[in-house]
Amino acid sequence: MAEIILPITSVVIFGSGNVATHLGKAFAQTGITIQQVYSRNQAHANELANTTHSVAITEPGKADTNADLWIISVSDDAIKKIIDHLPPYDGIVVHTAGSVAMETLSQFQHFGVFYPFQTLSKEREINHNDLPLLVEGSDPSTTQRLLNLASQISNKVTIADSGLRATLHIAAVLSCNFVNHLYTLSADLLGKNNISFDFLMPLIKETTQKILSMPPADAQTGPAIRNDQSVIEKHLIRLSDNPSLKKIYDLMSKSIIQYHNKQ
Amino acid sequence: MAEIILPITSVVIFGSGNVATHLGKAFAQTGITIQQVYSRNQAHANELANTTHSVAITEPGKADTNADLWIISVSDDAIKKIIDHLPPYDGIVVHTAGSVAMETLSQFQHFGVFYPFQTLSKEREINHNDLPLLVEGSDPSTTQRLLNLASQISNKVTIADSGLRATLHIAAVLSCNFVNHLYTLSADLLGKNNISFDFLMPLIKETTQKILSMPPADAQTGPAIRNDQSVIEKHLIRLSDNPSLKKIYDLMSKSIIQYHNKQ
Repeated sequence: MAEIILPITSVVIFGSGNVATHLGKAFAQTGITIQQVYSRNQAHANELANTTHSVAITEPGKADTNADLWIISVSDDAIKKIIDHLPPYDGIVVHTAGSVAMETLSQFQHFGVFYPFQTLSKEREINHNDLPLLVEGSDPSTTQRLLNLASQISNKVTIADSGLRATLHIAAVLSCNFVNHLYTLSADLLGKNNISFDFLMPLIKETTQKILSMPPADAQTGPAIRNDQSVIEKHLIRLSDNPSLKKIYDLMSKSIIQYHNKQ
Repeated sequence: MAEIILPITSVVIFGSGNVATHLGKAFAQTGITIQQVYSRNQAHANELANTTHSVAITEPGKADTNADLWIISVSDDAIKKIIDHLPPYDGIVVHTAGSVAMETLSQFQHFGVFYPFQTLSKEREINHNDLPLLVEGSDPSTTQRLLNLASQISNKVTIADSGLRATLHIAAVLSCNFVNHLYTLSADLLGKNNISFDFLMPLIKETTQKILSMPPADAQTGPAIRNDQSVIEKHLIRLSDNPSLKKIYDLMSKSIIQYHNKQ
C-alpha cells in the first residue's frame, strides 16, 4: 500500500531577514498558516508576524510543536545556536542556507533544506511563482512533502543535494553578489565624477541580454580580451587614488586574459 | 551670418572588428555611403565591404580623400600606426575608442571621437536606435556635424569630453566586461559539475532588474555583506583547485565587507 503523503499546512519561521520575510509572505499568500515567527529581536519578530497574521516569539524554546514544519532562516552561524534551544519535535525541520549541509539538522527525526536560489531584499517585491527553490529531505516522504509545499508557491522547484547546492551557491555569489558589487563600485566611481549611474543602464541591460543568446565566453568584449595593455595601463593609472578598486581591476583583467588565452 | 553645417553623407571605415562592423551596418542602414573599408587583412576588409556595399582596401594610403569622414575603429595601439600612413585630408577624422584622447588625431584639420558606449559582438544584432553614442569634436562645427550624424543612427547621443569618456569607459569595464567574465567563470564552474548555466538565469535577470528600482548598494545580498565568514571560508576551501578564481572570490568578498562597513 502506498504511503499517504500529508500536506504541510502550518509552519513556524525562525528568522526575520530577507529570506524569512519573502518565504513568510509567499506562504501566507498561498494559504499556509504561519503559526509563529521567531526573532531574538522583538520588533523584528513583530514586523514579520504582523505581515503574516502570525504570533511573534523571542525564545526558540517556545516554538509550537504542533506545526507541520519549522523553517530556520537565519545566518549560517546562528543556525546551531537556535537548534540547541529547540524543544523535542517530530515534524520536519529545514534550513534555507545554500552552503550548510542538511545533516546539521540530523538531531531531528525529519529534516531537510528549503533553499531559495534568488537575490531577495525585503524592500523589493518578487513574484513567488518564479522563485527557484532547491529542496532536499532526510527521507523520501520528507522530500516529497517539501516538494509538494515548494510547488504550492513556485513553478521552479528542483531537488538538490548538498553538493549541488554548494556549487550553485558559489556560482550565485559570482553571478549575483559580485556582479552587484561591481555595479556599486561603478555607481560610486561615476558619482564621484557627477555622472548619473543611469548612463550605464543600456550597457548593463545588453550585457545580460547577450548571454540569453550566446555563451558568456563568446560575449566577452573590452580591453582585457583584446589584451590591450595600453588601455589597461591608462585605467590602472586613473584608479591610483582607489587602491582597492585598482586591485580588482588588475586581477579581473589578468583573469580575462588568462582565461581566453587558455581556450 | 550663421555657418552652414553640411551633413556627413560619406565615410571611410578603418577596421573590421566588432565596433567597425556595427557602425558600418548602422550607417549603411540609414543611407550613409560607406566609400571604403580598410583592414590589413584582405578577407576581413572584403567581409565588411560586402555587407556595406563598399570597396575593400588594405593600405591606409589609398583612403578616399573625397569622403566626408574617416572613422578609425581599430585597437588603441593600432590607431597611431594607421594615421602615420594616411594621406593629407581636409575632412573629419575620428576614432571610436573610450580611452584615447581626441588629440591623438590633432595632425588633422578637423578631428573628433565617435564612441559607442555598448558591448558589441559581430555575432549579435543590435538596434542602432538604442546605441548610446558619445561624441566630441575639435571645433564647434565638427562637433555639430558629428552630433548630426550620430543622431541619424541613434536616439541616445551625448557630447562627452575625454575625461568623461575615460571615466565612463572604466565603469563600462567594471559593469559589463568584468560582469560578463564572472558569468563566464560561473558557467565554467557549473559546467565542470554538469550543471546547466540556465539554472542561473532567474538570478542574473533579477540582479539586473533590482538595480532599475534601487541603488546597487542597497540591492547587495550574499555572504560577504552579512560578513558570514563561515560561508566564505567554505567557498574558499571548495575553490582550492582553482587558485585564480579563489583569489577573485577572496578579493571581491573583502571589497564588499570593506565597502559596506565604511558606509
